[in-house]
Amino acid sequence: MNELVKLKDVGEKSLLKLARDICEEGPPVQVGVGDDGAAIKTEGESLVTTTDMLVEGIHFPSDVPIEKIGKKAVVVNLSDLAAMGAEPLGLVFSLGAPNEKEVEFLSDLLKGMNSTARSYDTYLVGGDLNEAEEVIIAGTAIGKVPEDEILLRSGAKPGDVIGLTGELGAAAAATEAILKDVSLKGEESLKKALFEPTARLEEGRILSESGEVTSAIDVTDGLASNLWQISRESEVELTVNFENIPISKAAKEFAEENELNLDTIALYGGEDFELLFTARPEAWDDLKTKIQDLGTEISKIGEVTSGEGVQIKRGNELEEMPDRGYEHFQE
Amino acid sequence: MNELVKLKDVGEKSLLKLARDICEEGPPVQVGVGDDGAAIKTEGESLVTTTDMLVEGIHFPSDVPIEKIGKKAVVVNLSDLAAMGAEPLGLVFSLGAPNEKEVEFLSDLLKGMNSTARSYDTYLVGGDLNEAEEVIIAGTAIGKVPEDEILLRSGAKPGDVIGLTGELGAAAAATEAILKDVSLKGEESLKKALFEPTARLEEGRILSESGEVTSAIDVTDGLASNLWQISRESEVELTVNFENIPISKAAKEFAEENELNLDTIALYGGEDFELLFTARPEAWDDLKTKIQDLGTEISKIGEVTSGEGVQIKRGNELEEMPDRGYEHFQE
Repeated sequence: MNELVKLKDVGEKSLLKLARDICEEGPPVQVGVGDDGAAIKTEGESLVTTTDMLVEGIHFPSDVPIEKIGKKAVVVNLSDLAAMGAEPLGLVFSLGAPNEKEVEFLSDLLKGMNSTARSYDTYLVGGDLNEAEEVIIAGTAIGKVPEDEILLRSGAKPGDVIGLTGELGAAAAATEAILKDVSLKGEESLKKALFEPTARLEEGRILSESGEVTSAIDVTDGLASNLWQISRESEVELTVNFENIPISKAAKEFAEENELNLDTIALYGGEDFELLFTARPEAWDDLKTKIQDLGTEISKIGEVTSGEGVQIKRGNELEEMPDRGYEHFQE
Repeated sequence: MNELVKLKDVGEKSLLKLARDICEEGPPVQVGVGDDGAAIKTEGESLVTTTDMLVEGIHFPSDVPIEKIGKKAVVVNLSDLAAMGAEPLGLVFSLGAPNEKEVEFLSDLLKGMNSTARSYDTYLVGGDLNEAEEVIIAGTAIGKVPEDEILLRSGAKPGDVIGLTGELGAAAAATEAILKDVSLKGEESLKKALFEPTARLEEGRILSESGEVTSAIDVTDGLASNLWQISRESEVELTVNFENIPISKAAKEFAEENELNLDTIALYGGEDFELLFTARPEAWDDLKTKIQDLGTEISKIGEVTSGEGVQIKRGNELEEMPDRGYEHFQE
């Protein structure tokens, strides 16, 4: 890659490669740059750590109550732990804010973060506050998982089924609505999906404990992009049946009323924080029962074959999905 | 505190209190908000984690080579682990940058971070890249320490001696020079102190293993401020002999030539990343020998008495140091 090219002109796939080339790995590093989180081997267990930054004006508009952004900042990081099958140990945050902000702003932010951490039975253990031009929330979650139960993006095998927790589309519909200036009034479930998503921590533990789940990722860049990440890291082909993708009813209705494209919502839509995974087919019924016991549905949306890339089947039509790259070099 | 007051109008001491009030603690939390890092109990060991953000234009000028800032970002975080006596396990970074930046910028940054992590025998294990208005480097270091060896800011006791690794003043002299637009040409040791500081990791391990060190902190806000932090957290009085404070020769000379105030440099100057600690007096000789074996000097700069606050002794004069507060709510 020509290093004088600008960041805006290269896909994050290239930047990921660059980071992987530079960041050396050694014996204690079980998972380095490029998965949902990193893993460091300690006695018998892997320490999983993941970091995510939310920047005002880029990841959230200035007029959303900061308490909600605090909640989301916690969920974004816990969701990465979920996608690795890890149990959270704690969170730390580096915060940036203009010094013109009121103290109330900080306390609302901390309250949002603390209550969300506690609702997942974990803790906000430390932080750092800095002056900055915009509001910046950089969070790091630390978790643990038995070394042999960790869920990676690599590991999917031909013959596996592709599974998904919950439903997609609500966060994307809400995002589209905001971009197109369509009111979200009365669309509480859409707003909630965008600003109060759920981290599938317990579901992730069930997937990882089963020993039958071969790869996992949380859906944060749109399904198509996250399918591509598994395809690329596992060196397999993934084929998804469009009609089996569970799309939120509220998102569907909202898309119809506002003439939004359902594909955009189902395939390219943003941050639903559901878990996308591949599993041995014989384990499916057991996984489904255990995850339903938590009140969460799982859907079988496709299968893994040898090859590479991502295909979508609609009726008898097979469509090759382009690799659009993805936003962050580590989600 | 009135929550409508602005961030710029309150000391970080008040903000720390606010954060402590909001962030709940529970059984696994050994050290929460307010020390050099946080500690989470795992089997027999404490997991130590610390986070620090560097913001362009606030923590570093735009014209410093980004590779150096990458190095510093690693050291800042490792220094917090050193101050807790912990051994590093790995680092993750959330990065923000304008998308107009060149890819070379990112690769230089990563190279600086990677080489520094490796020089301390640890690894850069993951990260997250985001668009932002300015360059933002939010790092988190994770380390471990046996649960009963952790060094905190609290724990200093009357009768302890106050110790310091290395020398102070070089980073502060360089900072003053930059603020006053005095050239640093030829002042390589001052520049190095500012842009290529050292994290005292091995020294921190020796202090913590000894079992005789009662508190520790890294000097990142100026000695006076860091003394106050120990005084406040340990509920003791600290008295320092001014003539025993080891000040860098280069800083002294530079101060004389440029009519800079030596007090500012010795007491209020910034980021030397030396370890300030308190220890049982009978352990001093042994600590000194072991740390000298690493090539690092330690100096006995004062003693701990019952009471509160910080005093500086010059000849027979005792001067009460004001509590100027400190910059971050967790260093």
